[in-house]
Amino acid sequence: MDDFFNVLQVEELVSRLESIPPLDVEKLSLDKSHGRYLARDIHAAEDLPATHRSAMDGYAVRSSDTFGAGESNPAYLEKITDLGICEVPDFSLASGKCAGIVTGGTLPLGADAVVMQEYVHEMGAGTVEVRRPVAPWENVMLRGEDISSGDVVLKAGQRTGFRQTAMLAAMGIEDWRFFRLPRVGIVSTGDELVDIKEHPAPGRIRDVNSHALAHLVRENGGVVSSYGIVRDQEKDLARILRTALDDNDVLLISGGSSVGQRDFTLRAMQAVSGLEILAHGLAISPGKPTIFARKDNRYIWGLPGQVGSVQVVMLVLVLPFLQHLQGADSPFAGEDKSLVRARLSRNLASRYGRRDYVRVRLEEDEQGYVAAPVLGKSGLLRTVFQADGLIWIPANCEGLLKGDQVKVKIIS
Amino acid sequence: MDDFFNVLQVEELVSRLESIPPLDVEKLSLDKSHGRYLARDIHAAEDLPATHRSAMDGYAVRSSDTFGAGESNPAYLEKITDLGICEVPDFSLASGKCAGIVTGGTLPLGADAVVMQEYVHEMGAGTVEVRRPVAPWENVMLRGEDISSGDVVLKAGQRTGFRQTAMLAAMGIEDWRFFRLPRVGIVSTGDELVDIKEHPAPGRIRDVNSHALAHLVRENGGVVSSYGIVRDQEKDLARILRTALDDNDVLLISGGSSVGQRDFTLRAMQAVSGLEILAHGLAISPGKPTIFARKDNRYIWGLPGQVGSVQVVMLVLVLPFLQHLQGADSPFAGEDKSLVRARLSRNLASRYGRRDYVRVRLEEDEQGYVAAPVLGKSGLLRTVFQADGLIWIPANCEGLLKGDQVKVKIIS
Repeated sequence: MDDFFNVLQVEELVSRLESIPPLDVEKLSLDKSHGRYLARDIHAAEDLPATHRSAMDGYAVRSSDTFGAGESNPAYLEKITDLGICEVPDFSLASGKCAGIVTGGTLPLGADAVVMQEYVHEMGAGTVEVRRPVAPWENVMLRGEDISSGDVVLKAGQRTGFRQTAMLAAMGIEDWRFFRLPRVGIVSTGDELVDIKEHPAPGRIRDVNSHALAHLVRENGGVVSSYGIVRDQEKDLARILRTALDDNDVLLISGGSSVGQRDFTLRAMQAVSGLEILAHGLAISPGKPTIFARKDNRYIWGLPGQVGSVQVVMLVLVLPFLQHLQGADSPFAGEDKSLVRARLSRNLASRYGRRDYVRVRLEEDEQGYVAAPVLGKSGLLRTVFQADGLIWIPANCEGLLKGDQVKVKIIS
Repeated sequence: MDDFFNVLQVEELVSRLESIPPLDVEKLSLDKSHGRYLARDIHAAEDLPATHRSAMDGYAVRSSDTFGAGESNPAYLEKITDLGICEVPDFSLASGKCAGIVTGGTLPLGADAVVMQEYVHEMGAGTVEVRRPVAPWENVMLRGEDISSGDVVLKAGQRTGFRQTAMLAAMGIEDWRFFRLPRVGIVSTGDELVDIKEHPAPGRIRDVNSHALAHLVRENGGVVSSYGIVRDQEKDLARILRTALDDNDVLLISGGSSVGQRDFTLRAMQAVSGLEILAHGLAISPGKPTIFARKDNRYIWGLPGQVGSVQVVMLVLVLPFLQHLQGADSPFAGEDKSLVRARLSRNLASRYGRRDYVRVRLEEDEQGYVAAPVLGKSGLLRTVFQADGLIWIPANCEGLLKGDQVKVKIIS
């Protein structure tokens, strides 16, 4: 069987996914925007800092008054005042003078540097001794050094993390436009499945995927509705798909590891009018039986049943797709600075024409990290549990050699 | 000024933090346990899989019946039935016979392997042709291969991620005991601060820290209460501390970049009866003015005011402490497999006796990642924004050299 021409290459599916527009935009207050993706660029309306401010506790000076100062030949300056943190000095600092200043305080006109407290000695009677020179603008946060009015300070598609939150607060932006979160329906199929509340009769197993998928979806911003287990009855599944498509942006149908079960999921999808199958079979391992379909602006993923396979398809395609719907900038790139470089511990064969994902355990030696493939049946939790990360072998490659450099996506 | 003997070494503070017990334990359903830390080990009560199950669609066989089979000399077997996914065969498979089986199906007694569908041809009249041999137990998930009854499958202190959720579901554990989340009160101090809703008058700045801290705390499981901005009035702050200590497990007081403001925070703490200062001044940069105090089983952190400094103290100490209260196993270790190894782009001096944290930008060349220090005043957002991660220089070291290997903690 040569699948090369029957199945969709991952890149083709990704380019279809990327052409799908993100969800609607809503306005959110800063404290609700945690983890959300910005829907519009933000331009600074003002300079930050708004004035020249001191970066230290010390003395605002004219730097030229300190040139040549040292332990053996200190400069002597007259302290004219101690500036409060909120004070905006209304005077200009003349040569030979200085003013006490605290971290964050605004410099008086004329001053162009701050001497740190520890290099100054107060002699009494308003005289201070400066034992070190300062360069112009030393220990000063310049007006506009952080942000200049008109700068694009945050770009649409960025996720609101610590840094973005700090920036929004610094700009005084109480609310902003963010993309809406996707509502995600989860359906498990399979006659052999029982709810985790039940003790499985012989031959049956618990429905792990509903819970594991819900976890991943929530971790990626999705709002989960669980539709439980659907027995292998085409009509039942088709009916649930119709309802769930009304109430969700995305449906995940897991299960169907056997050919018969997969056909059944496909037939149930085909029984939903207006539903269009965009991918049926992917050049990826594990995950070959993946289905992607749409009905208007609602999307359905048919996922493999094995927990190891479903994890890979989620990490590589579905979760980036959920991020894409939330407006993320290039979530499918698969390349980011959090990838850990490692050396492969053994040869790994791969089939040409198919992108292979391999779970690895990370070990460490003097030369760096070593990625050791965790092999095993994808129906076992053990292989999922023992792995620290995932590497991939491109489709146009027949394998990797022991010692090859790989980049590991850490999985949590 | 030699701080070496006046301030607490980071290791000393960490060992005090580690001796603090975690919060109470509560019972939670699986679907609410996302990101929580397990309070008890979990022992498996059963084998998983519960039976020998097929890892493939194909034919259950006695492997010895296929030995020597090949394209040119296939083995011929009699198919006696097609087993359904839920079926528990009540017969023993005799030599010369086989049974159709689907992925996940239970093997009949006597069978010890599964031949994949693609290597078998159905000849009609119940005869199947097998064109490849299988080894004993090939394509079979053995009873107990994943989990054996009695195994510790999850340990107390593990965080519930995808893998733990899958394991809990597979074991049929609907609810379990997890540590409670910390309630965290956030107070900003500083006469110069205004709420982000207001336009700052000259000399004043917006309260960035309340929002940025709330973000980090939420991201690490904390339940946030914000107490807004307290002006530099010792009595006001002491009053708010008393109230906030009643309602929270942990208080974060940020602000006080200047010596005067820091003294004020310390005096307000000292005015709260029963409050014990456990650390005042740390051998860490940035973050030297950090204060840690307790009142009974409630904890207070006095944090620096500069956004860059507060970020470091949060990442290095406060967030691991919040994880510790939630029962995390060794959150202070600072070593994990998600650290990215890189080469330092330039020499970095450091003061002996102090642990220095340096923000870095990650770049990449043929030999791997390069960590380029982002230098700049810690009051600027720019330095926070340009950094991809953090490296540290141990206290017993006077610096690092260009080309030295460093481990970078990626910051989001």
